Amino acid sequence: MSLLVVGTVALDTIETPFGKAERTIGGSATHFALAASFFKNDIRLVSVVGEDFPQAGFDSFAAKKIDVEGVQVKKGEKSFFWAGKYHRDMNTRDTLDTQLNVLADFNPILPENYKNSDYLMLGNLMPKLQMQVLNQMNKRPKLVMIDTMNFWMDSMMDDLLDVLKHVDVLTINDEEARQLSNEYSIVKAAKKILTMGPKYLVIKKGENGALLFHKNEVFYAPALPLEDVFDPTGAGDSFAGGFIGYLSSTDDISFANMKRAVIYGSTIASFCVEKFGIERVNELNHEELNKRIQQFVNLVQFDISLED
Amino acid sequence: MSLLVVGTVALDTIETPFGKAERTIGGSATHFALAASFFKNDIRLVSVVGEDFPQAGFDSFAAKKIDVEGVQVKKGEKSFFWAGKYHRDMNTRDTLDTQLNVLADFNPILPENYKNSDYLMLGNLMPKLQMQVLNQMNKRPKLVMIDTMNFWMDSMMDDLLDVLKHVDVLTINDEEARQLSNEYSIVKAAKKILTMGPKYLVIKKGENGALLFHKNEVFYAPALPLEDVFDPTGAGDSFAGGFIGYLSSTDDISFANMKRAVIYGSTIASFCVEKFGIERVNELNHEELNKRIQQFVNLVQFDISLED
Repeated sequence: MSLLVVGTVALDTIETPFGKAERTIGGSATHFALAASFFKNDIRLVSVVGEDFPQAGFDSFAAKKIDVEGVQVKKGEKSFFWAGKYHRDMNTRDTLDTQLNVLADFNPILPENYKNSDYLMLGNLMPKLQMQVLNQMNKRPKLVMIDTMNFWMDSMMDDLLDVLKHVDVLTINDEEARQLSNEYSIVKAAKKILTMGPKYLVIKKGENGALLFHKNEVFYAPALPLEDVFDPTGAGDSFAGGFIGYLSSTDDISFANMKRAVIYGSTIASFCVEKFGIERVNELNHEELNKRIQQFVNLVQFDISLED
Repeated sequence: MSLLVVGTVALDTIETPFGKAERTIGGSATHFALAASFFKNDIRLVSVVGEDFPQAGFDSFAAKKIDVEGVQVKKGEKSFFWAGKYHRDMNTRDTLDTQLNVLADFNPILPENYKNSDYLMLGNLMPKLQMQVLNQMNKRPKLVMIDTMNFWMDSMMDDLLDVLKHVDVLTINDEEARQLSNEYSIVKAAKKILTMGPKYLVIKKGENGALLFHKNEVFYAPALPLEDVFDPTGAGDSFAGGFIGYLSSTDDISFANMKRAVIYGSTIASFCVEKFGIERVNELNHEELNKRIQQFVNLVQFDISLED
């Protein structure tokens, strides 16, 4: 199916205990698109970059047949830039620098042929911009998924609550779920959030996996225990891209298929963290993916027959 | 089969955001024995209490046909006492008071008929005491499981490493696994610990579930997401008791059965936290247990057929 992804395309300088990558290609929409391109989809990308964005980035998109007509290139301006340093536990990081640059007055404009996209992934952007994208669609997509963060909850909660009314799947982490719902218990938080608009809620717990909530159903996919996490940047976005990419390619939004989508998303995320930036997902092949999906099955499967 | 459990039988004063329980019956061996008694086992208990230990505690053991011949009652002395207060997140707690009392010079002595027990659970005690129990056995049990904590790693690492050489299953939390192995990655930590003696390693991650490692195999059971956690005290011990109780009752220590044991242990732990102390597990029936096991199956099951 056609899948529209909207978000940042950026340059990241990342320092981990294992090394440093300078101005590597990153951004939420980059990770969404590359992860989703692993499945058969007609992927369209909406974002903005500056003149400094390297050709190699566009080459990566072209290699995966990702439509970049919706990526604005601002002459004489610079791309969104983020620099961060991870600590040994890889769960905490310090932001060393954030330069919004072209993102400061990003005005997402959808090319005409994007407006009928079947699936829509709205990356973590200002809620008003997310709403602006939704309003440009000619038809309501079959599924709208949205990512957001605590920053918007702190500063623009009303706008966020507004856009949430129009989406199907929300993906946030556990702390954000607590903040959004004002409930400490994750189960209570999920129940409350499912009354705010989204019919599905994915709570990302990093190395502790992800939970999918829908009505009274819940699915918990642990993360694959990894020997080394080289760079966690983009893991959550790779998860989201793999999730919606799988749903879109199968065009099946049943709960059973969403569970599979969680597994595919988690698996692609487990590759993302093995190298800096987009490097590992870019070189990933189907054989490697299937092998790791099988590891996932082995990791969680058990066989119990109930008796008195 | 026969299952010997060794550990503390104590009085706990527990404060949570939901209420307070004064001098409620607790202790690791109490939770082990009560959780394990849910399965068909011949359970023997070794511990020590003071004169202040209430008859209600002994009545609870008697109701579950737990042999308490190995529980020493010290005249004129007081039982091990712990007081703690949980914070809102229920993952952190302050210890308000610890009175070792009878535990200060606990000398575990096994009644003669305990020495042929098939399964052995060594609760978190001074490593020398754990060794002393092992040395009293007439035959090597089929399976020896041990619990320990960071306190012994800080103060008596050599003794701990010594006793670890003689056990089959070690259960600790993720921070303790990191400390014991001096490896940050949980996978690397597990590999290292599996060279120290234990053939199986259970890493408890609280609300994030538990991991079982053996050779190159790994099993990850998430914890059931609970609407409310009333009192986490004893959850880890209920898990351990349910785990070894299930193994002992089935007398099957294959990896596939250990996975089932993890699920049973996690499920009993999920009941333990619903009320103070031993209250909830004490009133638990098989129908409730089976219903929750089914919830567990629903929580984690998914169906993927791999294709290119």
